[in-house]
Amino acid sequence: MPTISRKGRLMPESPIRKLVPYAEQAKKNGKFIYHLNIGQPDIKTPDVALEAVKNNTVEILEYSRSEGSENYRTKLAAYYKKHDILVKPDDIVVTTGASEALLFLFSSIMDPGDEVIISEPFYANYIAFSTATGVNVVPAVCNIDDNFALPPIETFEKLITPKTKSILICNPGNPTGYLYSKEEIEQLGALAKKHDLFLVADEVYREFVYDGASHFSILQLNDLDEHTILIDSVSKRYSMCGARVGCLVSRNKTVLQTVLKYAQARLSPPTFAQIASEAALDTPQSYFDDVIAEYVDRRDTLIKALQNIEGVKVATPKGAFYCIVELPIKNSDNFAQWLLEHFDIDNETVMIAPAGGFYSTPGLGLNQVRIAYVLNKESLLKAVNIIKEALKVYKD
Amino acid sequence: MPTISRKGRLMPESPIRKLVPYAEQAKKNGKFIYHLNIGQPDIKTPDVALEAVKNNTVEILEYSRSEGSENYRTKLAAYYKKHDILVKPDDIVVTTGASEALLFLFSSIMDPGDEVIISEPFYANYIAFSTATGVNVVPAVCNIDDNFALPPIETFEKLITPKTKSILICNPGNPTGYLYSKEEIEQLGALAKKHDLFLVADEVYREFVYDGASHFSILQLNDLDEHTILIDSVSKRYSMCGARVGCLVSRNKTVLQTVLKYAQARLSPPTFAQIASEAALDTPQSYFDDVIAEYVDRRDTLIKALQNIEGVKVATPKGAFYCIVELPIKNSDNFAQWLLEHFDIDNETVMIAPAGGFYSTPGLGLNQVRIAYVLNKESLLKAVNIIKEALKVYKD
Repeated sequence: MPTISRKGRLMPESPIRKLVPYAEQAKKNGKFIYHLNIGQPDIKTPDVALEAVKNNTVEILEYSRSEGSENYRTKLAAYYKKHDILVKPDDIVVTTGASEALLFLFSSIMDPGDEVIISEPFYANYIAFSTATGVNVVPAVCNIDDNFALPPIETFEKLITPKTKSILICNPGNPTGYLYSKEEIEQLGALAKKHDLFLVADEVYREFVYDGASHFSILQLNDLDEHTILIDSVSKRYSMCGARVGCLVSRNKTVLQTVLKYAQARLSPPTFAQIASEAALDTPQSYFDDVIAEYVDRRDTLIKALQNIEGVKVATPKGAFYCIVELPIKNSDNFAQWLLEHFDIDNETVMIAPAGGFYSTPGLGLNQVRIAYVLNKESLLKAVNIIKEALKVYKD
Repeated sequence: MPTISRKGRLMPESPIRKLVPYAEQAKKNGKFIYHLNIGQPDIKTPDVALEAVKNNTVEILEYSRSEGSENYRTKLAAYYKKHDILVKPDDIVVTTGASEALLFLFSSIMDPGDEVIISEPFYANYIAFSTATGVNVVPAVCNIDDNFALPPIETFEKLITPKTKSILICNPGNPTGYLYSKEEIEQLGALAKKHDLFLVADEVYREFVYDGASHFSILQLNDLDEHTILIDSVSKRYSMCGARVGCLVSRNKTVLQTVLKYAQARLSPPTFAQIASEAALDTPQSYFDDVIAEYVDRRDTLIKALQNIEGVKVATPKGAFYCIVELPIKNSDNFAQWLLEHFDIDNETVMIAPAGGFYSTPGLGLNQVRIAYVLNKESLLKAVNIIKEALKVYKD
């Protein structure tokens, strides 16, 4: 039998995926599972987006432009302007989800062996895109005790080597919920400029910031047009994860032209999803007000309940809809599996994401889990209670 | 300014793309352009697919499974069975177009520096996927004088080196329209087995075979379950290029598991497009009968008209909706540009695809163009007449 590639063997499998067979078995055994493990919101997609697809007048479902439809990019530029991000439609390449934007970007700005510095813990698939493109991830370790804030910039700077090509942050962060301050973004911008690095920010959770804070985008930095690249998506903003529409935004023409070559090779982003995404830009502000009020309520409920558990440490997220929780256990992979296999209260159990997959530093995150507060309050409270009772009897 | 990657600089730009600014200028100048350059059919998408999207009942546009929805894969397996291709739903990974399937596959079975042998001329983006993954393309040159049939298998075998990992064909072929015989497929299968190579076939034009011929898939080969991988798409079959739904089919579990790791990293294929694609499987046979009758009529009209031009040589396609045409010129890039810039009849001109981009062998295809017969007969005749008159006055 012919062998697969070395790269293919190295591609990581999601730590959550490993739990799926246990979850399926638990369901077969009649257990109900509270899914705290995924970033799939339970929030309804805006009607304006769904209606646009229902009322579409397509007769020949043609390729769109590789960079995305002109109308959609024009409206996107207006959306960014409302967020004080001044870009032109031609600064935008529409992609099939933020995932594709990241894959094209990694391929465009980095060669195999190059290094990207990423604030750790980070979205697990950054490792997958790095492996797929042969790029090495250098983690900048952040700490639960200060809510996963940026480490001192001097610490960050020490990670830079001749191989470093870019810095990547997720703001607000998945899995940490951390919202970077304007000062932190400015520090990173200055560092990128000093060492001539690309500064990339995954800002797909831009709308989800709490406690009156405001989001500061890397594209609001001055004099960094050649260095900054924004990754975005409609998935979380409009609860449209299944659309598969994202984009890459930059004022660096060489980056855009290179990304476009990858975009042309795959012809175009999906048409129906672009129709939905364009219409979604007309979502009324009240939709976001309601959604954000709901997430704040859930977050507060969740954090309070978690803090009431003996031996549990939790970072307070200022954005997105995740938090990292430290548990009085040794190995969260085992604990997560045990919850599915061996624990329930009234036939209900919980699925959580072991945090090891969000770290590339060996040994870190093993006693942590990520909890997504994408369920209603009542469910969250029940789920946390299951974790609380489970910890009383669990033995590593 | 930070530099982009070497790989990014190497990524090819489509030779057709280079013509786009000239086409746009021609349109601005009021010229009408017959687009013979693209693979975007003018055929209506089946109603059953469009209606399914209009009548969708989605309320939360969720991620689908990374490998594609279970229902869709189950119906796809039934579709393949009708074509005498016996596969299970689990042998299928649904992708965002055949493009993504090819990119994931190249990454899964080949490392940078590995070689893929491809029948030449070939679909230009195969070069893009090779460049993106660092794989070297070794062309197996086919000839217009025998309609681009497979070269003698001994010639093919001589191209195999220790670096060779796979053989890729497109059947029926873009840009040649060549339909491989069962015997040719069997020869390739035996070669793949003998040298332990993967045999990959892009069969997205499966339905488009003419003159009573039948299509023989590589998945119909016996005893090659570990070697054969099928690439497919709904784009051409149902005139749904904008859906962006394709798939990869294989009985090799290691290949499927590796491709799935790439698929998981990008989360899921687009949901609305999967709804359309699943419904499209119920397209009545009469739709295909009509479409194929139309393409045969167009092909016959086109070939006859081209053969009437002095100095023109044309291969007779048995499938797909392209043909390669040899013109009495030196450089088809220049000719194609000149048609847009300097030639018209009653303010109408033609856009054709220079064939150089379909060859990796330097110097080949420069006097050839690809013509897609995706326009109605009347338009095709007018377009060919423009080429005929243009050749009378054009000077290289």
